[in-house]
This record gives sequence, structure tokens and C-alpha cells, in this order.
Amino acid sequence: HAFSWLDQRADEEAKHVRATWGDEPIRVLTGWPLISGLPLEHIAWFRRHCPAQFAAAERFLFVNDFIGCRLTGQLCMDPSDASITQLMNIAAGDWDERLLEVAGIERRQLSPIQPSGVIVGRITQEAAAATGLPQDTLVVNGAHDQYCAAVGAGVTWPGRVLLSCGTAWVLLTVPENLATGLSSGMAISRHAVEGRWGAIRSLGGVGASLEWLLDHVWGGAGAGKKRERLYDAIDDAAARTPPGAGGVLFLPMAGGHAASYGPAGGGFLNLAISHTRDHLARAIMEGTACELRWAVDEMQATGIEVAELTMVGGAAKSPVWPQIVADILHVPVTVPSLKDAATRGAAILAGVGAGCFSDAEAGFAAWRGPENRLSPTVAHRQFYDERYVQYQATARLMASRAG
Amino acid sequence: HAFSWLDQRADEEAKHVRATWGDEPIRVLTGWPLISGLPLEHIAWFRRHCPAQFAAAERFLFVNDFIGCRLTGQLCMDPSDASITQLMNIAAGDWDERLLEVAGIERRQLSPIQPSGVIVGRITQEAAAATGLPQDTLVVNGAHDQYCAAVGAGVTWPGRVLLSCGTAWVLLTVPENLATGLSSGMAISRHAVEGRWGAIRSLGGVGASLEWLLDHVWGGAGAGKKRERLYDAIDDAAARTPPGAGGVLFLPMAGGHAASYGPAGGGFLNLAISHTRDHLARAIMEGTACELRWAVDEMQATGIEVAELTMVGGAAKSPVWPQIVADILHVPVTVPSLKDAATRGAAILAGVGAGCFSDAEAGFAAWRGPENRLSPTVAHRQFYDERYVQYQATARLMASRAG
Repeated sequence: HAFSWLDQRADEEAKHVRATWGDEPIRVLTGWPLISGLPLEHIAWFRRHCPAQFAAAERFLFVNDFIGCRLTGQLCMDPSDASITQLMNIAAGDWDERLLEVAGIERRQLSPIQPSGVIVGRITQEAAAATGLPQDTLVVNGAHDQYCAAVGAGVTWPGRVLLSCGTAWVLLTVPENLATGLSSGMAISRHAVEGRWGAIRSLGGVGASLEWLLDHVWGGAGAGKKRERLYDAIDDAAARTPPGAGGVLFLPMAGGHAASYGPAGGGFLNLAISHTRDHLARAIMEGTACELRWAVDEMQATGIEVAELTMVGGAAKSPVWPQIVADILHVPVTVPSLKDAATRGAAILAGVGAGCFSDAEAGFAAWRGPENRLSPTVAHRQFYDERYVQYQATARLMASRAG
Repeated sequence: HAFSWLDQRADEEAKHVRATWGDEPIRVLTGWPLISGLPLEHIAWFRRHCPAQFAAAERFLFVNDFIGCRLTGQLCMDPSDASITQLMNIAAGDWDERLLEVAGIERRQLSPIQPSGVIVGRITQEAAAATGLPQDTLVVNGAHDQYCAAVGAGVTWPGRVLLSCGTAWVLLTVPENLATGLSSGMAISRHAVEGRWGAIRSLGGVGASLEWLLDHVWGGAGAGKKRERLYDAIDDAAARTPPGAGGVLFLPMAGGHAASYGPAGGGFLNLAISHTRDHLARAIMEGTACELRWAVDEMQATGIEVAELTMVGGAAKSPVWPQIVADILHVPVTVPSLKDAATRGAAILAGVGAGCFSDAEAGFAAWRGPENRLSPTVAHRQFYDERYVQYQATARLMASRAG
């Protein structure tokens, strides 16, 4: 029986925990807000709805320690993955007895939490036969995918921010300490680097906006090279359109402040007959960057340092978008030329376990590769500041309308 | 020396008239608001900037009486064209001495105003040679193009409204009397049918919105058959999208209430990732219809009767849009199957002059042709009423933002 984090069936259990514990105590204790898609709630659901299987269950494993156990016979959980179970005391870095009681399980049914980068074990004869991997291959304790990406992108020091651009845009940063992290209101985890913290905020659906433009305005469909050429065409369109997009203002279709009180807060505003789809492309890049600045401003307002941003994923491939982000946020943006930061981060942690690197940061330094460093354009600063103010005012107006 | 109504050079002269007469007295006296593109202001400009030519000018003719004069040697102006010179007393139907004085000309320099449909004269030998038209061909006093269209579409009775859909959408209706017309705030002319009045309001740029979608979202460009196929595709898209356009709200890019205080009030709102360009197409048709209802509501609020709407021009060719207009306005919409209402109206007036018809209305009855009559869909009434309220609230919000 497996549950994904998108699985909302445990809504009743989340309500029950909320009623007995309250939202804020759970958030401060575990680092994560009370949502129905986390293991605490899923296990409680399982206990209530499948009592026989629940009673017969020997262990409750997650994807990572389940696979680790099948490969090596050893049980080992890592801190950043454990942070998202809502079963761990974030400050202590260990399973919390009271939360285990809510779930109805015992400590011995979970894997012990050990640092990322320690050796879990070696691949057994049986696992070697099943997987084709050489017997005795070292298996090292990894990390949650966002934290692997943080390791692979060097976002392990306070002041650094990782922006992973997919359908959602996910911000990951490194608060100075747990208290700063918790006061930011972001989702807090123990970092893959021991002693460091991580704070995550997701702008869900923001990144999907350009994909929408590609599909519905740029002729869409297609895959592979054909689709990449459409992205190139959109980049060209945005590049040849001056800052301000001819006045067109774009509000992201999901995950933005405009949508915070309504299901559909997106839109193109200030449209005139003289505008073309080029303006729409530029407006999307600027609007999403404004939304991002808003989130980063809120982070900074709670004491999280933002000295530079490392951008990875789809939007980072654009020759235009990262510079727009740098210009609107007034923050230097680094775009690594090596792709797949998460995979590289996992490999770095494996290297730490294998003794290739003294620690994850040494691994990043060794495998960093060339980077494209973009400085904010001073000449655009005032213009974009005014545009950002206009963006916020409009998004608030839209939110008030939907509410 | 010729001036078109788009020629704004006489802005200073309009300001001068405004300062000495005031906007409202001019509007009540002439039926038309004081704008810098009308002959009163153009002639005053000509007097000031070209004093020698002005002093030497024997006559001041407009396109219609100039051509009539060249064809027949006779001077004859029609009431609906004279209404738009800002030199005519709308109530009296004759040139106004005080206005002529402002322009600096004398009555003998203008053609006498005679009813539409009277004979101007016959084509002279010289004109026959120059044009290839048979000598002695009858030339009949016509009307302003919008009023020719009104005659050709049967919009000559109170309660009837002509909607001419081009880049702008132009509403022409028949107020019961001059006082009702003037209190509507619309631009008032004497109708091509004697004793009737006409009131015009232009929603400038509203109709251009769908053309914008075709050009910038539907792959655009092309002409003739190819372009018509794109319109067909947009019609299909709008037809397969249910009323409400999935919640997408469109504000016209020009000429709408949202744009009344700013240069660019257009936009697509409530956009979600799940929307496609089909929703944009339907949203444009519904949004423009909401804007139209707003204008028609304002007409009705001032006492102008609106019993039915006759739709001609680009949008009338759509198999979807006229029904959306009928549904959102709760007014029956007639779409004549015969095209080119203005040309037909001019021909009807010629027929009146030639004695083929007793009057313009008899001519329309004879040449009416088949019509597509669309009734408002009762089942959609409440839904569209709510959408219209939402549309108005949003347009007002946008206007307040721009102001």
C-alpha cells in the first residue's frame, strides 16, 4: 500500500489533528504545515480504514528507506526526507513520540534517521541479482529531491536561494537557524548538509504560464526538437520586446497572489490592439518575475537573507528570462551550465559516503562546472520597481474581486 | 484642399469654439459633440492658416455635394450629411448663421440642404464623357453612409437599432423625437427618411478584438479564403465552448468602458491553465456583447426604445456571435442575408428619386430579402445577467485603476 503526497484522502485525519493539536503547534514542532498529503495523516488514515493490514504491518517505510532496505537489508532514513513525514521533531532531528502516537505506530517500525552522505550498506547478493548492479556496491544515504538539487547547485549557505523552475516554481533557501526558518512561514526541513536548515516555498503553476502560451498561442503541441524550437521562438519574441511588454501586465494563472483568494486569478491586462503575442511572451516573463520578487520580498521581510539566486529547470534555459528575474529582483542570478542539479547533488552525497569528498560542499566545489552569472541591469531598476508596484496593486485588486 | 474627419489639425479651433460657446450649446444646436474633425473647425482652421486661398474660395463643398455638382452642375446637400458638418441647426434642418460666422463663410458658399431621395439633376455631357455613365442619368440626393445602411437594413422606425460591425461597432437608432435623441448623449443627425431622427454611438475598436485574436493567437495573416477559414475556425471554437467561456472574462482593447479612462483597458481575466484559445474566442464574443449591452442599457435609460437589433458587417457573418448578442442583450437580433446594407440603402434612395418607390420604407420592403431572426435564449438569461453584472464590475475596477 503506497500513498503519494498528492493523495488527499486523509483530509479527515488532518482535520482531527488540527482540532486536537492546532495548526501552529504542528508547524513549529515539525517544520511543515498541516496538510493532508503527509505520512502522519496517511498512516492515521490507514489505521482507521484498514485496521487488519495496519495491525499486521511490521514497518512503515518511505520510498527511499524502502529501496535502501531492499538493496542492503539496512534501515536508514535521511533528515530532509524525514522532515516531510510530519512525524519528526524538526529541532531534535528525531522521530517524535507524541506524533508517532497520533499516527498509531511505534519508533521501532520506522528507520533510524541518519545524516545524508553516510553509508547505508552494500548491495546484497539477492539485490545484485535482481538489479544487475555489482554486489557490494556502496549504498549511501541520500536526501529529498529538492535538497539534492540544493547540494548540486551549491545552495547550502545562508544567502543562497535555489529557484527550481518547472510547472511550479520552487524556492529553496538556507535560513541562518531554525527560528528564522520557522518565522518565515515557509516549509522547513533539515538540510542535506548537517547542521544546516532549508526553507521551501512553492509558487504552484507559475512556471506553467509560458507553457500555456506555447500550447495555446504559439501553435503548441509537438514534442522534442519541435517543441524546443517553439520555446526558442518565444525567447526571441521576448528578447525583441523592450522591458515593460508595451504595458501588458500578466498575472500568473495559478500560484500567484492574485489567485490567493480565487481559483483563477490569471490574466493579461492593459491589452491594446497594437499588442502582439510577442508582448504576451514578455509580459509572462515579467509577471512571473514580479510574483517571484513578491515571494522573495516576503522571505526577506522575515529575516531570511537573499544574496543571490541559482536558477535551474525549464525557465533557466531561456536566454532572456533569467536576466529579467535578475533585473526585477535586483539580485544576481546564477545559471549553472551543468543540468540536472538534483542528480548531481545525489551523486555528490554518494561521493561523500564513498570518501571521494570530505563533505557535500567540497563535492559541489569539485563538480561545480561553468556558470552563467547575470547581474541586475542598473538602468532598468527604477522602471521595474514601478512595474512591480503596479503588479502588486493589480494582483491585490484582482484578489479582492475574486474574494 | 480636402480634410477627412480623422484629421485632427483643427484642435486649436475646437478649443476656441469650446471657450466661446461651450460644449453643450454646440451639441444641442448641431446634434453633434464638439470634436476637432468636423467641417466647422476645419474651415476655421483653413481660414486662419491659408488666408489667401480662403479668401479666393467660392464654395465650400463636401464629398457628396462636390461629386453631385461635378456630375450635374447642381448644388445639393442632404440632411444626414449636413448634420455632421457642425454647421447645421439640427432642429431647423438648415445652415445656422451663427455657426457660419464662426467658420467665416456665408450661406451662398454652401449647397442648399434638400431631402434624401430628391433628384439633384442629370449627368451633363461633360460628366458623361469623363465617367462613361450615360448622359441624362438621374443623380439622386443620397445620405451619410451610416444612414444609407439604416435605410438598407430597415432601421427607420423607433425601436429599431442597427449594429454595424467593423473595426468599430456602430450603433444607429431612431429616437422618437429630437429631444429624446439629444438627451441620450449620442450623436444626433436628421435621418435619410424625412421627419425621422437618427442617433449614433460608436464603440471604437470593440470589433477589432476578434481580428486581434485571429492575427495573434490563431496564426493570423493571410487574406481572402485563407483568412475566412480562420474566422470559421474561431467560430467553431466559440460554438463548442459553453456560455461563460469557462469563466474567462474579456474586456475590449479599445472603445469599452474599461478603456474610458486609460489608453489600454483591454484584457483577459480569470485565466487558468486549463483554458485554451477556444475560451479566448468565446470570451471575446461574450465580452464585446456585454460592452454592447452596456451601451444599449444607457440608450434605454435615456428613453430610447430598443425593440430589436439588426446586425450587419463582419461579426454578423458569424454563426455564433449574433446569437450571443441576442442572449446577452435579451433583444431579438435580425441578420439580413443580403450583404452591403449601405449600398442597398443608397440604391433605395435612388429608386425613390427615380419614382420606383413611394418612399424609402417601401423600397426596403421591396428589397428586404430573407433574414435570419434570432430570439434570445430564455434558458441562458439568468446566467448571462450575472455575467454582465460581473463584466460591469470588472470594467469599472479596471477603469478606476487606470485613472
